[in-house]
Amino acid sequence: MDLIAFLTDYGHRDGFPAVCHGVILGLAPHARILDITHDVPAYDVRHGAAVLARAAAYLPPAVLLGVVDPGVGTRRRGIALRAGGSLLVGPDNGLLPPAADVLGGVEAACSLDREDLFGKDRATTFDGRDIFAPVAARLATGLPLAEVGGSLPPSDLVRLPEPYGGVDDTRETPALRCEVTYVDGYGNVQLAARPEDLARAGLAAGGPCVVEAGARHPAALGTTFGAVAPGGLVVYVDADGRIAVAVNGGSAADRLGVGAGMAIRIEPVIHDHEGFPSTCD
Amino acid sequence: MDLIAFLTDYGHRDGFPAVCHGVILGLAPHARILDITHDVPAYDVRHGAAVLARAAAYLPPAVLLGVVDPGVGTRRRGIALRAGGSLLVGPDNGLLPPAADVLGGVEAACSLDREDLFGKDRATTFDGRDIFAPVAARLATGLPLAEVGGSLPPSDLVRLPEPYGGVDDTRETPALRCEVTYVDGYGNVQLAARPEDLARAGLAAGGPCVVEAGARHPAALGTTFGAVAPGGLVVYVDADGRIAVAVNGGSAADRLGVGAGMAIRIEPVIHDHEGFPSTCD
Amino acid sequence: MDLIAFLTDYGHRDGFPAVCHGVILGLAPHARILDITHDVPAYDVRHGAAVLARAAAYLPPAVLLGVVDPGVGTRRRGIALRAGGSLLVGPDNGLLPPAADVLGGVEAACSLDREDLFGKDRATTFDGRDIFAPVAARLATGLPLAEVGGSLPPSDLVRLPEPYGGVDDTRETPALRCEVTYVDGYGNVQLAARPEDLARAGLAAGGPCVVEAGARHPAALGTTFGAVAPGGLVVYVDADGRIAVAVNGGSAADRLGVGAGMAIRIEPVIHDHEGFPSTCD
Repeated sequence: MDLIAFLTDYGHRDGFPAVCHGVILGLAPHARILDITHDVPAYDVRHGAAVLARAAAYLPPAVLLGVVDPGVGTRRRGIALRAGGSLLVGPDNGLLPPAADVLGGVEAACSLDREDLFGKDRATTFDGRDIFAPVAARLATGLPLAEVGGSLPPSDLVRLPEPYGGVDDTRETPALRCEVTYVDGYGNVQLAARPEDLARAGLAAGGPCVVEAGARHPAALGTTFGAVAPGGLVVYVDADGRIAVAVNGGSAADRLGVGAGMAIRIEPVIHDHEGFPSTCD
Repeated sequence: MDLIAFLTDYGHRDGFPAVCHGVILGLAPHARILDITHDVPAYDVRHGAAVLARAAAYLPPAVLLGVVDPGVGTRRRGIALRAGGSLLVGPDNGLLPPAADVLGGVEAACSLDREDLFGKDRATTFDGRDIFAPVAARLATGLPLAEVGGSLPPSDLVRLPEPYGGVDDTRETPALRCEVTYVDGYGNVQLAARPEDLARAGLAAGGPCVVEAGARHPAALGTTFGAVAPGGLVVYVDADGRIAVAVNGGSAADRLGVGAGMAIRIEPVIHDHEGFPSTCD
Repeated sequence: MDLIAFLTDYGHRDGFPAVCHGVILGLAPHARILDITHDVPAYDVRHGAAVLARAAAYLPPAVLLGVVDPGVGTRRRGIALRAGGSLLVGPDNGLLPPAADVLGGVEAACSLDREDLFGKDRATTFDGRDIFAPVAARLATGLPLAEVGGSLPPSDLVRLPEPYGGVDDTRETPALRCEVTYVDGYGNVQLAARPEDLARAGLAAGGPCVVEAGARHPAALGTTFGAVAPGGLVVYVDADGRIAVAVNGGSAADRLGVGAGMAIRIEPVIHDHEGFPSTCD
């Protein structure tokens, strides 16, 4: 296990990720470090958790080192987890469990309380450098998980609240009503819904629909961006296997005016009103 | 050939490049991956092609994996090319040929049509993960080019239109008239002109000139930024060997109000008008 | 010494760092390249010097290749230095000495004047590619420092001006008055002051204080962000061991309206005025 996959909200301009690379190379000279990203929006644990889980699904067994840590310097715990042949290290604030779930679920958890494993001259504001990177490096060199600190019941870990997603039957037309869970850099809007939720809300592949987010926007259920004309709005199953909304060649987040945590309603078009696409694909 | 040089417009904040790293490491554990950039402006095939070609000129033999792909999910082909000891993998939309040209020209081309080489559970919107990265990884482990799919005549590849550049003799004073091909992060403006074009337009090294882009701006032909005073405009041969316009310590793109695809006219100053630099260097 | 740690203000979108990677891999195929950052603000030598020094403190022995070089193409020298088991390569403009100081001070210095070590087809505007990367690569493969050019007395190197920091006793209440030396990506404001300066200005751990930067802002001396309520202003010792000002969960640079080079005054609150926190931690 010489691969350390590293995610933070540090950005690159201050050199903070490189400082952690230095710490790791000092303790684990043969480690390979893969930077998942250091461009998580500052303090955005939910965004970081989503990206870490996305990467975990495709990485070989590795030490996943994740640091998005608005509570640095407070009493929040540091933790290390085992899941599906990988190990995860970071703060106990909800960042790590979604990735552990993708890997098959938390098999063991420890609290990082062995100060002799930490960096010397610890600061109070850079636990990535002083706690998490040193522990990740030692795990990469073969330190057993149980040696990093006291055992924790997995049910004790902090978890992010589950986003809302379900069928809304409070109006004449049933619809899918769900929370925006993620907006990517292209402006594609990912929802807390799975492909199987579409049929339950009466949404048929290839059919027209209305996306409601404040205003009502005509859209179509398609399989990819090109299912609608350039500038058109498409509801599709994205590469993470979630329902998402995109604009062909543009930003759905800008069009709809939505961000993570906001609610969207998608309803089928039963009678084909003027201005709504009646077919796609 | 264990080096994979990787370029996309994915950005880093969503972890998409890291997902592709994971796919590659799963199939080619010994591959080294060099990230050329993932900050190509979204969907900007021309920008991506220029950066890929710039890097190709200096990289050792490698698999060049390029994904700037506004047509993902449509019928546009995936391709793999051989050029000068390197292999190139990506969409057939003009992204790869300029790099292949830098390497000596396309020697062989294949269409990516062997679905057994692709990722399982293919999505319709992430061919980087599901098609291009897996094929690049297999080429890096020694799969012969001819095995990735059917052979294509190189003349069949999609190519970007050639930018315009030439001598403009429609006015009293002859001039260089050419398209802006690239603006770099410092705001330096690269043109579709080569050093040999300067003399043809009567532009002499060290002499004053006028850069016309809407307004007319006094400038000088110099060999480097310091050839003019701070804030001054200089026409020079850039590090890619192209004619370019820069502001010493500033952004020529902002000064001139130009971007890629726009036209610029550079004319010599025959009589030295007031306000124009008469010497430089 | 196969590790090359690389810092520039090139950004990533143009592929300039990757071009240098290519040059290095061509000359030193076994080198490992660690990108410290390429997001130093354009031409900001002071910012680059601070980040290089920060990383140097934690890196194993390496060739540190730093290029923030507003004077490219002028007569400014290229230099290589030895400090504490590491070598440093870059322009002689103040970028390298702070990192050398962190490593124990400059032990030897050379001017880069052996053109046979440089790249062929040198441009006038890309010394990173044509001079600094080739020299760094050769040092990484074992070329002795003395072979890269003529010896220089360390006292001859260009150094950045020392930032101001000291006790201000010109008013009734003594205070710390110092220059902002660095603002990080979170908006934390680092000052030209060390922990020992606090007591000299009458500032006691845990006590209330006033941060003056144009307006006067109530603050507290704490050990970490959580020492004050969310949105509160805290003066603390940061992870570099310097006095800094932060907003818990926010940007102190935005709150105070300050940037690098500006002056801040921090004075103790002797009598506890209304609106100022009287305790913290």
